[in-house]
Amino acid sequence: MIGSVRRLAAVIGLLAVSAVADAQPLPSWNDGPAKQAIVDFVAKVTTEDSPDFLAPQDRIAVFDNDGTLWPENPLPFQLMFALDELRRLAPDHPQWKQNPVIQAALDGDVAVLKKDLKKSLSEILKETHAGTTVDEFDQRVRDWLSTARHPRFDRPYNGLTYLPMQEVLAYLREHGFRTYIVSGGGKDFMRVWAEDTYGIPPEQVIGSMGPLQFEIRDGVPVLARQAGIDFIDDKEGKPVAIHRSIGRRPVAAFGNSDGDLAMLQWTTMTRSPSFGLIVHHTDPEREYAYDRDPASSGKLVTALEQSEQQGWVVVDMKRDWKTVFETTAASDGDMSLDATNWIAEDIGGRGVVDIAQSTLSFDQPNHVTGNTAVNRFSGPAKIDGRSLQLGPLATTRRAGPPALMDQENRFLKALSAVRSYRFDGQRKLLLLDEQGQVLVKLAQLDR
Amino acid sequence: MIGSVRRLAAVIGLLAVSAVADAQPLPSWNDGPAKQAIVDFVAKVTTEDSPDFLAPQDRIAVFDNDGTLWPENPLPFQLMFALDELRRLAPDHPQWKQNPVIQAALDGDVAVLKKDLKKSLSEILKETHAGTTVDEFDQRVRDWLSTARHPRFDRPYNGLTYLPMQEVLAYLREHGFRTYIVSGGGKDFMRVWAEDTYGIPPEQVIGSMGPLQFEIRDGVPVLARQAGIDFIDDKEGKPVAIHRSIGRRPVAAFGNSDGDLAMLQWTTMTRSPSFGLIVHHTDPEREYAYDRDPASSGKLVTALEQSEQQGWVVVDMKRDWKTVFETTAASDGDMSLDATNWIAEDIGGRGVVDIAQSTLSFDQPNHVTGNTAVNRFSGPAKIDGRSLQLGPLATTRRAGPPALMDQENRFLKALSAVRSYRFDGQRKLLLLDEQGQVLVKLAQLDR
Repeated sequence: MIGSVRRLAAVIGLLAVSAVADAQPLPSWNDGPAKQAIVDFVAKVTTEDSPDFLAPQDRIAVFDNDGTLWPENPLPFQLMFALDELRRLAPDHPQWKQNPVIQAALDGDVAVLKKDLKKSLSEILKETHAGTTVDEFDQRVRDWLSTARHPRFDRPYNGLTYLPMQEVLAYLREHGFRTYIVSGGGKDFMRVWAEDTYGIPPEQVIGSMGPLQFEIRDGVPVLARQAGIDFIDDKEGKPVAIHRSIGRRPVAAFGNSDGDLAMLQWTTMTRSPSFGLIVHHTDPEREYAYDRDPASSGKLVTALEQSEQQGWVVVDMKRDWKTVFETTAASDGDMSLDATNWIAEDIGGRGVVDIAQSTLSFDQPNHVTGNTAVNRFSGPAKIDGRSLQLGPLATTRRAGPPALMDQENRFLKALSAVRSYRFDGQRKLLLLDEQGQVLVKLAQLDR
Repeated sequence: MIGSVRRLAAVIGLLAVSAVADAQPLPSWNDGPAKQAIVDFVAKVTTEDSPDFLAPQDRIAVFDNDGTLWPENPLPFQLMFALDELRRLAPDHPQWKQNPVIQAALDGDVAVLKKDLKKSLSEILKETHAGTTVDEFDQRVRDWLSTARHPRFDRPYNGLTYLPMQEVLAYLREHGFRTYIVSGGGKDFMRVWAEDTYGIPPEQVIGSMGPLQFEIRDGVPVLARQAGIDFIDDKEGKPVAIHRSIGRRPVAAFGNSDGDLAMLQWTTMTRSPSFGLIVHHTDPEREYAYDRDPASSGKLVTALEQSEQQGWVVVDMKRDWKTVFETTAASDGDMSLDATNWIAEDIGGRGVVDIAQSTLSFDQPNHVTGNTAVNRFSGPAKIDGRSLQLGPLATTRRAGPPALMDQENRFLKALSAVRSYRFDGQRKLLLLDEQGQVLVKLAQLDR
């Protein structure tokens, strides 16, 4: 019973995970009106008894992707993918020499493509991918991402997301928001990496779509991509796609161009509480600078003009962002587990329940605490260089719903098998077993 | 400290809510192979360490609506709505006399409409609703539902859902599944009532769609319905819509007609574990009997022929279903709170967090226990006829994430204000305050 009393004292005495989560929100943002506006909005809609309190199901935030969550220069990244695919496949398609857009693309004549970026992309995708199944297309995107590197920054494309916006995504989700991508980019292109890169699952990725056809090929049901475009998720298409996909009106919208104007209007006009934000690209040193006359996509005129009247926050990238991109893996050597806090994103390749928080905190030297999703736990941590052993861990013994108990079992089992760890550079921690296989993937919490 | 020890003992000693949830699953199903197949499938994909275990994010189940979750006779209910709207609006539209389909509809000449049900519906919806905003359309559906009654069963249409299928929906969700509607019916028509009626939120309702246009009318942003059909979510369209909306392949599909064939194939062919089920209408006494030659929609030939080879479960409605429809409110007088268990669906009009289970059990005479979402509670219940008072309630004191603590606060506050209750006939319990206003809406759990 004494042991039980101790555990109870631990349950009651420990600060709740959440209670300290907001101590230092949005660390990659400089203090200023933009950061303050985000924090104030989240506070007022999540404070019980606030007149602006929103129920969890109404906390919906929509994000443009190109130019809002990652760059769109020198060309939108999906077009970079399409061009790389074209070059990869060209030897098998001599007839492409007859097609002026395709030939321009193969010649690297970007000026021709830029005359109509969307049409060029559509034409190239038709030639490269019509007839492939959605699974085959998925694999091609995956292969490309694992090898292609951005020409200026020399990093994988999905290693170039804006750290301040990643923090906004995480901050909103920690406060019960669901975050959606609403992009002119292809839905199937983005879904391949959106969950790993942004923590946004496939059903919350909204984008442009080409026609698909259901077929049974040799006894196997497939969805085959057809030539053409069914729906362009841009400009006035964005509110339509939001309505069709979500069926509720968002309360927060984040964009960077006139392509996001209708989405910002739909989210905020004659609607309170609501929040609109425009990322203004003002930083040629660290990223790019453009608005009225962009070198790639991202023309921003009308939305900027309307921003003051509509109360939209305009982010001055150069002034408001302390850091633009996530730190690279190169700085791994400087990182330590001391006083860090983590939340599990995946356990044993089987994911985690959306709202269940399995956490791990290196709260004191050689000691961890955390939450299994149902119970608190704590115990010793033996850290030596990159080797790590956890436990034995003492836990409270509350029972919960089956899905959460599943997760608790998997989490505790995985933690007991940990023998080493590594960072992956994007504020992610990987816990590895004896064979160096990933047991648990965690994301760093800001506190 | 003694109080603390008692509370701890309570935490450890109480059976988990979930542990008893499966004692009597699917009570409206007769024992037999259909019921057993559902239970076996759920067990094998949710049992940790089973080779067929599925992570929560892969537990996706799709349901046709017309003929699978509710009837489709004498006509699909959405067409009944459209006809009622036509009659309501006819006095203001003398020009409708020139339109043969519209005139047939007004004359009640159903034979003309049945020549092409989808075209008739589209034509009528165009005349009645083109130009209305999605909000106006929503209100019209709501108004209709609150007054219209089914001609044979004399009940509101959404009071005619199949109780055995409601139990399947709830059973799957209790085991971590997400349930989607994938119907040929209109997405915007179904979303109005799907959450209240089935517990399926708008973003999980997939259906046919007409074109929408974003406009700003007198300074107010609206989505206006346009004439025509953009997408018919039927037959080969169903796998396409599933892919676009969910981005993952379901593992369980429920249908009743050849319109569901492609969805069943996409879900189950060359895919294990997976589950397909067809509701065969064999009960003219309690509902309807049809397959090859239906009086309304719902032709079932090919899917039935393929069912054995594909391993799809065929439900014989007459044999397999103990009850077809939910009990009506008329039987309220016979119901009591004794030994009933409930889960909150809404607290104070602000909803509940999806996975958080706020529960209430009348476990002993004049006593309740439950879960706030974070903590267990228990205390006295004073029941006298329809008057009810709860508390003072003792709770454990674990802290949780902010969204769940919000919910706990709201739930406990609401329970302390309860002065009476009523059933609403669909296995729902409403807890009311001094003024008779609804504080909490709960759904009955099967145990």
